[in-house]
Parts: sequence; C-alpha cells; structure tokens
Amino acid sequence: MAAMSSATPAGPGRPRDPGVDRRITQAALDVFGDAGWAGFAMEPVARRAGIGKATLYLRWSSKQELLTDALTAGLPRISDVDTGTLHGDLVELATQMIGLYAGPCSKAALRLHLEAASIAGIAEHYGRMRTAQIAAARDIIRRGITRDEIPGGTSVTLLLDTLAGGAMMHALTTPPAERAALTAGAAGHARELVDFLLHAVATPAH
Amino acid sequence: MAAMSSATPAGPGRPRDPGVDRRITQAALDVFGDAGWAGFAMEPVARRAGIGKATLYLRWSSKQELLTDALTAGLPRISDVDTGTLHGDLVELATQMIGLYAGPCSKAALRLHLEAASIAGIAEHYGRMRTAQIAAARDIIRRGITRDEIPGGTSVTLLLDTLAGGAMMHALTTPPAERAALTAGAAGHARELVDFLLHAVATPAH
Repeated sequence: MAAMSSATPAGPGRPRDPGVDRRITQAALDVFGDAGWAGFAMEPVARRAGIGKATLYLRWSSKQELLTDALTAGLPRISDVDTGTLHGDLVELATQMIGLYAGPCSKAALRLHLEAASIAGIAEHYGRMRTAQIAAARDIIRRGITRDEIPGGTSVTLLLDTLAGGAMMHALTTPPAERAALTAGAAGHARELVDFLLHAVATPAH
Repeated sequence: MAAMSSATPAGPGRPRDPGVDRRITQAALDVFGDAGWAGFAMEPVARRAGIGKATLYLRWSSKQELLTDALTAGLPRISDVDTGTLHGDLVELATQMIGLYAGPCSKAALRLHLEAASIAGIAEHYGRMRTAQIAAARDIIRRGITRDEIPGGTSVTLLLDTLAGGAMMHALTTPPAERAALTAGAAGHARELVDFLLHAVATPAH
C-alpha cells in the first residue's frame, strides 16, 4: 500500500504539506460520494483537490489505494476514543456519528453501505475497518461495565445500536439547510442522546 | 400521475394482476437500488420483472412516474400503524425499519438518502413522503402520551431517533449472510429494542 496516512514519514524529498493531504482526502471522498466507484478516478480527484494528476500518481499507484487511504484518514477513528468515563466516550462517539452523517463525508459514508461489498480491493479494507470500529465501540461499553458505571447485564448491542443509530438517524432526517447548524452543535445533541440512553440502562428494570 | 397504487381502479379492460404489480414494484426498486437514477429506465425494469416494455408504457408515461409509484407501494407506510397501544405501534415501526434495511429494498432506501434531492420529480415526492412519515411517527408517540403510557415530558425526537435509528443500524451492521435470518426474526428483535427504549422514558430521571 502506498501511503497509509499523513503520519507516515514522507521519505526522501520535501516533507508533506498536511493541508494538501487533507484536500486530497476530502476530494477523494467527495468524488466517491457523488459519483460512486463507477465515476471514481485520479483525474476528477486531482481537479477537485486543485493539484496536478502527477502528484497523485507519485503517491498512489491505483485508485483503490487512493480511496483506501482517504477512507482511513477521513472516517471516524473510534479506537482513539478513551476519555476516561463511559459518558465522555459515548458523547465523543455520538458526536463523530453526527459529524459523519451531517457533514461533508455523509455521501461517501452512505455510498460505502451501498457499494463497498462489490468493489474489489475496497470490500476487504472496509470490512476490516468496520469490524475494528464495532470492536472498539464494544470495548467502550465493556470498560464502562468494568468501572461500574452501568450494570453488568447491560445489552452492549442495544446500547450501541441506539446510540450510533440515533445519531445517524438524527443527522439524516435533518433538512440539508440545517445540517451545518447541527454539525456546529453536535456535541450538545450528543450529550442529550447519551443522557437519554444511559438513563435506560442505569435504572433497574420495572 | 399515471397510477398511484394497485388500489387505484384499473379502468377499462382486464383487472390488474396484483402479482404483476408486486413484481414491477420490486423490479423498479431493485434497478434503482443497484444502478441509481443514472441507470434507471423502463427497459431494465421490464426485463427484471419478466414483462414486456409495452406493458410498462401502457401504465406509466415516464420513469419518474414509475419510480414514484414503486416507492409509494414498496416503502413502509407508517401512517397505517395503529395497534391501539404505544408498545404495539413502536414494535410495528421497528419491525418495518428492520425489514426495510435488511430486506430486498435496502439498497433503494439507502440510494434515496444519497440521490433523491437531486432527481427532478422525485425530490418533491420523496420530501412529501418523508415529511408524512415523520409526522405519522410523531403521532404514534403523542397518542401514547395521551393514553398515559409514557410521561408527558418524553422527548419525541430522541425516542424516535433511537428507535428508528437503532433498528436501521442493527440491520446495516448485520453481515449480508445473516440478514435473511434477521428479517425472519425482525419482530422479536423489535420487541427487545422497544422494551429497552420504553424503559428509558418510563422511569423517572435520576
């Protein structure tokens, strides 16, 4: 694989410009979100990022590698979430989900659900990413149980489905004209969602 | 608009075959789900439904009208949900959502989130459908409040986001090979989800 992320040393030559890396990542996700795999190519990504096509070919030898790196860099990293409390971790997770589905990567994220399984070279990478994300999210809940923040019998699946799904649904049903405001206030809505759900698991069954 | 649904009288000639109507609806949603609006046309829909193209043109004068009718007939009708109890209504709603996102219309439903806003003639219809569905879902919660099944201060938005989103997320994160089993047991999972969420709103805040 050519370049895993902007954290990889740039090798000989000039150090990489992180602003250019971010532009390439967003341009790749934009083109994939708008046109799908059928319309994904070096040319439109370079045009959208405002760079020469040669710059892309210097770093990525195929469009699979370019999209793989853009997904790795541009989609949420649940494995990095560890604030020290379950409440803090869940707010961070919900904030990331709202940002993803109300923000500039929304179309790319939806497109992955539709197309990832049928794109050679992307299916495996996306499958691994999704498995790792689900495992990291389940670890967040298990750490909360270990710290006695919620009861041991809590359904990890129901809590995660309603948290991540509730954030996603809220973003998708927000009219496009109001999504920028939702993204700006994502953490506030995430806190309301987490308070609502933790109340479900923290009180004994009736 | 040519034919709003199979409930519309067929006019002169032979009465319609509801089996053919269902095949056309599913074929139209399959083609839209797989190929998007760019690949949606009378020809592939007729081929997939196993009927002649002339049969489609007799009833629909444009592909917009065909897709509009397929969406009306094939997507969940939340406005028809009224079991008499909040619990029953929410289980029905969650079962519909699981069936939609784990079943044969999953790709068409995801494709609508991606493309509907930019398809002339579909954007308005989809916008009206979605507004009506959200209003019908909110009515379900309000009837539950009127019947004293949940407290008056319940957040309608949080309860609906977590219910519909939790069902959607569960379906989307279920591996393709296990989706048929999930669809078959959708009502059972829907009940677990509803019990989990109603517990959140039925107990006083701590």
